[in-house]
Amino acid sequence: MISRYSRPSLRELWSDQNRYDTWLKVELAACRAMEAEGRVPNGTAANISKRATGKLNAARILEIEERTRHDVIAFLTHVEEIAGEEARFLHLGMTSSDVLDTSFALVLVAAIDEILAGLDRLQMVLKRRAEEERHTAMIGRSHGMHAEPITAGLVFAGFYAEAKRNQARLLRAKQAISFGKIAGAVGTYANLSPAIEQAALTDLGLQPETVATQVVPRDRHAEVFSTLALLGASIERMANTFRHWQRTEVGEAEEPFGKGQKGSSAMPHKKNPILSENLTGLARMLRSTVGPALENVALWHERDISHSSVERLASPDATALADFMLARATTLVDGLELKRDRMRENLDRSRGLIFSEAVLLALVQTGLPRQRAYEMVQRSALAAHQGGEDFRGLLAADTEVTARLDEKSLAACFNLKHHLRHVDSIIDRALRQS
Amino acid sequence: MISRYSRPSLRELWSDQNRYDTWLKVELAACRAMEAEGRVPNGTAANISKRATGKLNAARILEIEERTRHDVIAFLTHVEEIAGEEARFLHLGMTSSDVLDTSFALVLVAAIDEILAGLDRLQMVLKRRAEEERHTAMIGRSHGMHAEPITAGLVFAGFYAEAKRNQARLLRAKQAISFGKIAGAVGTYANLSPAIEQAALTDLGLQPETVATQVVPRDRHAEVFSTLALLGASIERMANTFRHWQRTEVGEAEEPFGKGQKGSSAMPHKKNPILSENLTGLARMLRSTVGPALENVALWHERDISHSSVERLASPDATALADFMLARATTLVDGLELKRDRMRENLDRSRGLIFSEAVLLALVQTGLPRQRAYEMVQRSALAAHQGGEDFRGLLAADTEVTARLDEKSLAACFNLKHHLRHVDSIIDRALRQS
Amino acid sequence: MISRYSRPSLRELWSDQNRYDTWLKVELAACRAMEAEGRVPNGTAANISKRATGKLNAARILEIEERTRHDVIAFLTHVEEIAGEEARFLHLGMTSSDVLDTSFALVLVAAIDEILAGLDRLQMVLKRRAEEERHTAMIGRSHGMHAEPITAGLVFAGFYAEAKRNQARLLRAKQAISFGKIAGAVGTYANLSPAIEQAALTDLGLQPETVATQVVPRDRHAEVFSTLALLGASIERMANTFRHWQRTEVGEAEEPFGKGQKGSSAMPHKKNPILSENLTGLARMLRSTVGPALENVALWHERDISHSSVERLASPDATALADFMLARATTLVDGLELKRDRMRENLDRSRGLIFSEAVLLALVQTGLPRQRAYEMVQRSALAAHQGGEDFRGLLAADTEVTARLDEKSLAACFNLKHHLRHVDSIIDRALRQS
Amino acid sequence: MISRYSRPSLRELWSDQNRYDTWLKVELAACRAMEAEGRVPNGTAANISKRATGKLNAARILEIEERTRHDVIAFLTHVEEIAGEEARFLHLGMTSSDVLDTSFALVLVAAIDEILAGLDRLQMVLKRRAEEERHTAMIGRSHGMHAEPITAGLVFAGFYAEAKRNQARLLRAKQAISFGKIAGAVGTYANLSPAIEQAALTDLGLQPETVATQVVPRDRHAEVFSTLALLGASIERMANTFRHWQRTEVGEAEEPFGKGQKGSSAMPHKKNPILSENLTGLARMLRSTVGPALENVALWHERDISHSSVERLASPDATALADFMLARATTLVDGLELKRDRMRENLDRSRGLIFSEAVLLALVQTGLPRQRAYEMVQRSALAAHQGGEDFRGLLAADTEVTARLDEKSLAACFNLKHHLRHVDSIIDRALRQS
Repeated sequence: MISRYSRPSLRELWSDQNRYDTWLKVELAACRAMEAEGRVPNGTAANISKRATGKLNAARILEIEERTRHDVIAFLTHVEEIAGEEARFLHLGMTSSDVLDTSFALVLVAAIDEILAGLDRLQMVLKRRAEEERHTAMIGRSHGMHAEPITAGLVFAGFYAEAKRNQARLLRAKQAISFGKIAGAVGTYANLSPAIEQAALTDLGLQPETVATQVVPRDRHAEVFSTLALLGASIERMANTFRHWQRTEVGEAEEPFGKGQKGSSAMPHKKNPILSENLTGLARMLRSTVGPALENVALWHERDISHSSVERLASPDATALADFMLARATTLVDGLELKRDRMRENLDRSRGLIFSEAVLLALVQTGLPRQRAYEMVQRSALAAHQGGEDFRGLLAADTEVTARLDEKSLAACFNLKHHLRHVDSIIDRALRQS
Repeated sequence: MISRYSRPSLRELWSDQNRYDTWLKVELAACRAMEAEGRVPNGTAANISKRATGKLNAARILEIEERTRHDVIAFLTHVEEIAGEEARFLHLGMTSSDVLDTSFALVLVAAIDEILAGLDRLQMVLKRRAEEERHTAMIGRSHGMHAEPITAGLVFAGFYAEAKRNQARLLRAKQAISFGKIAGAVGTYANLSPAIEQAALTDLGLQPETVATQVVPRDRHAEVFSTLALLGASIERMANTFRHWQRTEVGEAEEPFGKGQKGSSAMPHKKNPILSENLTGLARMLRSTVGPALENVALWHERDISHSSVERLASPDATALADFMLARATTLVDGLELKRDRMRENLDRSRGLIFSEAVLLALVQTGLPRQRAYEMVQRSALAAHQGGEDFRGLLAADTEVTARLDEKSLAACFNLKHHLRHVDSIIDRALRQS
Repeated sequence: MISRYSRPSLRELWSDQNRYDTWLKVELAACRAMEAEGRVPNGTAANISKRATGKLNAARILEIEERTRHDVIAFLTHVEEIAGEEARFLHLGMTSSDVLDTSFALVLVAAIDEILAGLDRLQMVLKRRAEEERHTAMIGRSHGMHAEPITAGLVFAGFYAEAKRNQARLLRAKQAISFGKIAGAVGTYANLSPAIEQAALTDLGLQPETVATQVVPRDRHAEVFSTLALLGASIERMANTFRHWQRTEVGEAEEPFGKGQKGSSAMPHKKNPILSENLTGLARMLRSTVGPALENVALWHERDISHSSVERLASPDATALADFMLARATTLVDGLELKRDRMRENLDRSRGLIFSEAVLLALVQTGLPRQRAYEMVQRSALAAHQGGEDFRGLLAADTEVTARLDEKSLAACFNLKHHLRHVDSIIDRALRQS
Repeated sequence: MISRYSRPSLRELWSDQNRYDTWLKVELAACRAMEAEGRVPNGTAANISKRATGKLNAARILEIEERTRHDVIAFLTHVEEIAGEEARFLHLGMTSSDVLDTSFALVLVAAIDEILAGLDRLQMVLKRRAEEERHTAMIGRSHGMHAEPITAGLVFAGFYAEAKRNQARLLRAKQAISFGKIAGAVGTYANLSPAIEQAALTDLGLQPETVATQVVPRDRHAEVFSTLALLGASIERMANTFRHWQRTEVGEAEEPFGKGQKGSSAMPHKKNPILSENLTGLARMLRSTVGPALENVALWHERDISHSSVERLASPDATALADFMLARATTLVDGLELKRDRMRENLDRSRGLIFSEAVLLALVQTGLPRQRAYEMVQRSALAAHQGGEDFRGLLAADTEVTARLDEKSLAACFNLKHHLRHVDSIIDRALRQS
């Protein structure tokens, strides 16, 4: 997680300070639950909280860890330093992972909430752009080649629908990770009880793991990473589209270009799609975390600690990147300047070839076998494509065609409005999704 | 997809024959929907179906494709060969991807159904083993080191709970992929209509894509691959556990070993955990498909065809591996021979050290600060660990300990039954999950 | 490995038949080495070879394996069936992996040789194209935006230089994998000797593994997969360049389009860059094999068999894909039709903006601070870019500019030939590489 | 790159300060080369260096970048601030990537040098351990099952040989990345010359890229990442071996355990192999960088900037992890305590079964067909394995066996020294490698 590609809220979430604060929150919730069961004197948690909450010194804990080489023991030692003797009632019957995994779930849930909020903002601008550009005709392209007309609004609506799917996935991933564990060394509650766990986790907004080992099983975490990677791939699809729209020869869009911003140290006229390119690269990084997350699932027996380093590195990275990418994508979608004239120009560039399918179908409707019709159309199409002549003109000069299609029928094939008559219903279908 | 690691049902699903048969099914569904709209003469689909269904010649289609270099055109040409002139009414206004993506969804849904059935079978044997071994005490291990007692039933129950989570994920992936598209070259229904698509897809058990481009967006497919990879990682966790149980020094389990099977060409006494090892390797392959699937999402503009080769290779591979792995895992879980005597032996091996936490807690309960108690216990624990002496004996000889715990209190710490008192409720919680 | 994306030679290499034939070759080489040491009667290998070489029945071996569940034992049993009693002298003191890993090395070496030959062919056509298009001026693009002029030959020369680097990597990977092992169960020659291994491997063109476990260490194989993935990425770079050149608005190239080939089932005018797109997708698959190969390195102790399934699947796939991609890339480079007129048109499209850096430098040479000069040039550049006016004209009308650059100096900045004066030396540098 | 898993030297290398210092070094080298060509007044570089070297203010540059959104322009602006007007002679005819990529090469080379030094240290301790444990007999294991005897020294020698291979790979990767580029916007030297580049790069210890685009082609960088990932996998193999040796039931080794270190917050007797487990997790992270690095190769046309974010994140991470892992692995190998008694105990545990192959071979030598001999040995082997009886005793009681092997011949099969007679020559072969 580097500050260039992360936002303060996410950095804060993964700070040492927040880690320890969250650990304390978990220990206190467990302590309160033990009070209710009579294992710990009433008021213990309240007393400790008064002395320790908001007062943990992250640097001091790291210093103790240097010596003990064990993070949770270092933390508990520090709490005892500042909260005094009652701190001995913390962590009773618990194992480090009870604190770590429960806290990890809390931080991941908070991170996903940030990401969901960012996704909401992105959806809002996508929706607005879809409405605004609803009827902005442009050429649709397959294989990078002109195909048939679409509208820019349709493209934004498609991104909106995909964002909705990612939202649903993220909500499920959040649900999957909303599980904690206060069940002791190997998950048997040997010196605890399911009731204590239930009370403590309810307090924290989590549910108890069905069958924990020493840890919460890592398939839950792998689901989170997979979901973020998928979100990244969807952002990449948008970014890639915008990059294509911006390339010189296409010229249908321009990224917001800040005052004072310089495109190139050598070429003063350059205005480069650097936001979208950047998103493309970040999507690569985001998906690179899935492999390690999947390898983390098969821990040895009741757990080994190999997952820990992966999670220390990849969790902040993946969540912060996803959050950052959403914010950057939102800026980009929001400020992307569309060049409607250029879109129109590009649309007209193929001299009617984009209507070839309509001609094909009209010929088939006259009773011609499809393959015959195809060859008939391809003849003029290739000639128009290579020779730079007008497709419609070539067809009108082809007696085999005119034998079957009169002038009016041919003209009807070249109608852009007709072509786009269903666009409104598609966009409405997308934007009205709950 | 090689026959060594796939089952006939999956191979059949991905055969050329089934591909073409499914294409025909899609074309016919679309054709029927067009009949209903009056675009195509009534009875066309029925006539074509009579002549072509069950009669497609896959080899012939491939032969035509050699020439046309286009698979769907080759298919349509062949249908025209065998169904005659009426075949010209097929594919009207449609683009290849309408057929390909809709068919792909149907095959993926069928594959996921097979996998779900396999997962059901695995769950059944896991449930049985969890019940059977509910009270089979064994040592729980963290970091590969003896920790505290568990039962074998708990381990199976944990795998069962994880299988349930994978089942839920697969059901969602199936839902995510149950979308087809009959919307024309760039998804605008330029020569079709949403109504035709709706009718045809309903007929096929699918829903229309919200906003299609030329294709169904690939985030849906990436979700399927991610889900399969996660399933593979969970199977790997099981396999890895069984491998550990089987290693010579642990000796707590043995894989089913067929009559006539030979362990090693050089060492006749070897009985190797090859099924579990094999599952470990296959999990690696399964997760390797996620990367390409994620890279497939960001197609150019309204689509490019780079995803196609990935899907031709990875879809059969990933689904067939998942299916095969489930079958093999089921055999393994079903036939895994547990060595209860050895489990007991291993449990006793640490001379009581596994009860160290209970002693720690008992000391803390007497009012000792946690860190003091920890050091007191660690003293005897390390001595027992290194010197091979009995941990309980060492504690009983430690006057600082006996000053705080009398003989009865100390004995209470060394009670296995007490340790495992919550196991039943955990297993019940897992197995009663809906 | 599917036939659509592999060539017969590679399929043959990975066939069951070739696998067993290679095993026999290894067993016979070991047998001959043992004869030389007097462990086996003279003539044994020759006798067995006479009866078995070229006569192994792959189907029969697979049938025996069904029962023994052990591939090498099945093979040896079959050899005994056809070569008679003397076959008992085969495999003396050897373990299965002695045969398997040595054979695997032989097949991988053969596969790499095929790939190297394919890479040679690619280099030849790249070299030819680099020569042919040496002076074909076109616009260079960064960020998809017009930057400064290059020549098409320069692009081909760059691909040539990259192919050379991949050739060097492949030669090293071949060297890395040219190691066999005939050292027994755990690599100690317990019932063999280094001399036997040395003789047998020399016979086969391999070297002995420095320190084998039961197997040849898998870092060697991972190097092969990494190298192939890198080759794939380089092919992807070429393919991606060609895709960009071909997109409608750029139009600078066209893929070879076969007679009878059809671009789209719906749009008869389409000629799509499907070869290049296909290569892009295959590169994704090729790189997906690196992960499993790297996971294969850390086998348990002296080996576990988890690597085997990965290798059975990924080795044929990766080598056959690399081979196929090279062949397809060669066809593509060979037949790619360049549109020089369009290149020129695109070059002129920016109305002189591509010479902005030359102007910037000329201004700096007059003693202007760089940032001042930059702003001066950017002024006209942005105006030209947005307003569609001629850049040179705007500069000529800017008194601040003309105060420093007279007409002749300004004209000198707009000289394409001058711009490209070093192209020959770059191309020569690339093509003359040994 | 987090401080927990990186060392100061690597963090320093990737600091903003070092980045800018390196940029300056590159600009000055280019400036000196231009002086030699007479493009820039003599002494310019020296003057700028006097005022700027060691005096760059990283924070100030980042502040300027906030506004310009362009890192190199921000840097040049700052240099002008502190070095005055002459700074306008810097960067003449150069593009940002000339500075960035050349500097990137310098930093990567420095990082690889650190890693090579770390690998040297690891090799030294591996060599020492191989010598020390040359004759420390232990059981070799395949599939996690006892196979035949090896020595611990052999294992260390194997790791040493693998480290040597990684050293060779790293040296090649260093060579591959020792290329810079001072060739202007699209690599044509439009406003530069090959001679300037040659002089500047020679000065910096680099070579000129054969055919640059705007950037140095990214296959070079991908080779670096692949090589680091492979190194990580090799460290993982070591770590994994040590983890297995340490697991309770095996007990053949113990990690260095610091004074004051605590194994578990709940179980005071635990001494966990956390160093090795940590290395396992880090290897996963290291290999996750290969995917993005490979995706970076296929940049658009003469370059797009998508690679940049990947490199900003993955380059520090990958090199720092590799460096850290080597240091940690060296500590681990150096301090790993081997338990020779336990190794001996484990060796004896199978009651002679580990010599089964020797018996098999002795029987074959008497003229018995291999499969008959195999079955004869397997009979006693399985009985010994299951019944806990002594293998040698069972054989001695088997009349079919004794009919062929007299007592002395049988005894000869059970000789550990004979078994290990080639160990010295293997270890010598490994350690004497140049």
